Amino acid sequence: MTTNTITTLCAAISAPDSALLPAIRHAIDHKTKPLGALGQLERVAEQLCLIQQSLQPQIRRPQMAVFAADHGVAAEGVSAFPQAVTAQMVHNFLAGGAAINCFCSTLGWQLAVVNAGVAAPLPNHHALIERAVVCGTANLAVEAALTPTQCDSALLAGAALAEGWASAGSNLLSCGEMGIANTTTAAALLAALTGWSADDCVGRGTGIDDLALARKRHAVNRGLARLPAGADPIRVLAEVGGAEIAMMAGAMLGAARQRMAILVDGFIATVAALVAVRLAPASRSYMLFGHCSAEGAHRRLLDHLGGRPLLQLELRLGEGTGAALALPLLQCAAAFMTNMASFADAGVAQGEAVECLR
Amino acid sequence: MTTNTITTLCAAISAPDSALLPAIRHAIDHKTKPLGALGQLERVAEQLCLIQQSLQPQIRRPQMAVFAADHGVAAEGVSAFPQAVTAQMVHNFLAGGAAINCFCSTLGWQLAVVNAGVAAPLPNHHALIERAVVCGTANLAVEAALTPTQCDSALLAGAALAEGWASAGSNLLSCGEMGIANTTTAAALLAALTGWSADDCVGRGTGIDDLALARKRHAVNRGLARLPAGADPIRVLAEVGGAEIAMMAGAMLGAARQRMAILVDGFIATVAALVAVRLAPASRSYMLFGHCSAEGAHRRLLDHLGGRPLLQLELRLGEGTGAALALPLLQCAAAFMTNMASFADAGVAQGEAVECLR
Repeated sequence: MTTNTITTLCAAISAPDSALLPAIRHAIDHKTKPLGALGQLERVAEQLCLIQQSLQPQIRRPQMAVFAADHGVAAEGVSAFPQAVTAQMVHNFLAGGAAINCFCSTLGWQLAVVNAGVAAPLPNHHALIERAVVCGTANLAVEAALTPTQCDSALLAGAALAEGWASAGSNLLSCGEMGIANTTTAAALLAALTGWSADDCVGRGTGIDDLALARKRHAVNRGLARLPAGADPIRVLAEVGGAEIAMMAGAMLGAARQRMAILVDGFIATVAALVAVRLAPASRSYMLFGHCSAEGAHRRLLDHLGGRPLLQLELRLGEGTGAALALPLLQCAAAFMTNMASFADAGVAQGEAVECLR
Repeated sequence: MTTNTITTLCAAISAPDSALLPAIRHAIDHKTKPLGALGQLERVAEQLCLIQQSLQPQIRRPQMAVFAADHGVAAEGVSAFPQAVTAQMVHNFLAGGAAINCFCSTLGWQLAVVNAGVAAPLPNHHALIERAVVCGTANLAVEAALTPTQCDSALLAGAALAEGWASAGSNLLSCGEMGIANTTTAAALLAALTGWSADDCVGRGTGIDDLALARKRHAVNRGLARLPAGADPIRVLAEVGGAEIAMMAGAMLGAARQRMAILVDGFIATVAALVAVRLAPASRSYMLFGHCSAEGAHRRLLDHLGGRPLLQLELRLGEGTGAALALPLLQCAAAFMTNMASFADAGVAQGEAVECLR
């Protein structure tokens, strides 16, 4: 990255030129299939064409980045798992044993593991990208989770990583996360940015009981109480956010600046996407949505962003797994745009049928 | 195939031994993830483990077979496209220009194109498997679509093809179809086999208008009127069926006998699956469902079969495209069973958390 402020980053993001849209739609409608018969894949193809400004889009070096960090709010008893699991799972990612490893190697994603702010020491490992801005955040129920400097650093570090992947030839980024208690953080961010109630934003995460659910709502409400109405997104992110969520939002902004497609994962990643969209509305044009998770507020948030998820498999794991699984759908959308014959190419009857279908 | 009657074929199909189920569930529940966090993929993994009788399932040489045939009922004006399009699309498949070609080459399916009964002459082409039992069926609105001999031949030819693919090392079969007017045929079969009304079973197919929809319902009702209540599935298949649907049903039966997994495509393929299940109920154990199509009766049919589709992308194309797109989900389900670490393997804390989640 040649510039180093968030304002400069956001100002450099613009939506793709839509002048190509009629040509894209004409190409899709003259492929050898009934009009609209590829359903949602046609909309994916259209978006990829716009982003890449090409009628023959391709997915090159798809990059999955899993950002890990700890959350002080874990002390409120809001998760089914102890905080130590964040670092243990980073070890598991590095050893290749987690779900996201299996999906990435099966589907052809490049996988990067990023320490955004894990509380426990992590090993020197060739596959671990060290970008920690904090050793676990402060407890958002009690005080600001991040200092303004930590928050800015996380955003800019994420952006720089994404821009580096773009330089290395990737044109698709997905961000996953690992952080015990981070559905609490995400719920607080969502409530603060939308004005929705804590009750509407808080869900059971990895599977907590009613008592923990009540503690989770209470923690979120305490954090929200410190925020003035209409606080700007960066202030909200520092007050009730998390290091990995800030870094994911920054990565999405960096990706949008480089005109990469962004495949958004589940609830927490979509909250990071919301932060990015609030900071730079044009970044939304680069986002596709991989999976609607079982976390209740996710569907509402997707609707709020006008996002249509490609998969609904009741995953509730994070790590980027939902987005990872959707990659082949993007590849197939690109493939049909690039390789499928038109009626004219193939000598297939169309004329009357298309009249009748329009 | 060593035997040549449908009765022998069906009698040789048995459900997988369920004795392995507790071990499968134990393995899934001890992977490094919250309980149930991989949602529907966990059920896919369980089914693949049962079918393959292994805790480390694999998908080998996935085989897509597109069966093409014509339907005399096209004469009733039930489709938006002229009958000639069936043969034209077979040419397109052979030239590699159709959606299913793009998806198969992107995702790693072996693709076979089978002539089950196209009305027009087809070329000699190395990639075309010639198994036509008829040159287009008779008009089901007027008379039996297939003779009993044609119907049996189609079923047995499908079974022999599937068993051949199993011998060549494939353990996953999917069947797609191409046949102008075949949603009419499929609707008639569905109504006859379930007792549902023609109105409930007939939809807009590739996109017909209200007038064509009325003609389609009328055609189905005329076919149904010739069938006695409780007619057996083979009689129904001959009276109101189609050559490609019969061959698909036969292929699914052959696959089930060889203990291959069967990934069922959209509305027409699911009607073929219903025929197979009526002939050999144990074949259901081998079926997974790729896609819920936009054709209205498909969802109801999936519920009737207790099938849960992996994708809902509003496709309405046939050709096997919906199932094709779901292959990576099966591969990922197999990959997580085979390669994902357990809590013990990875040294990740589980004890209390699992207690709390159960």
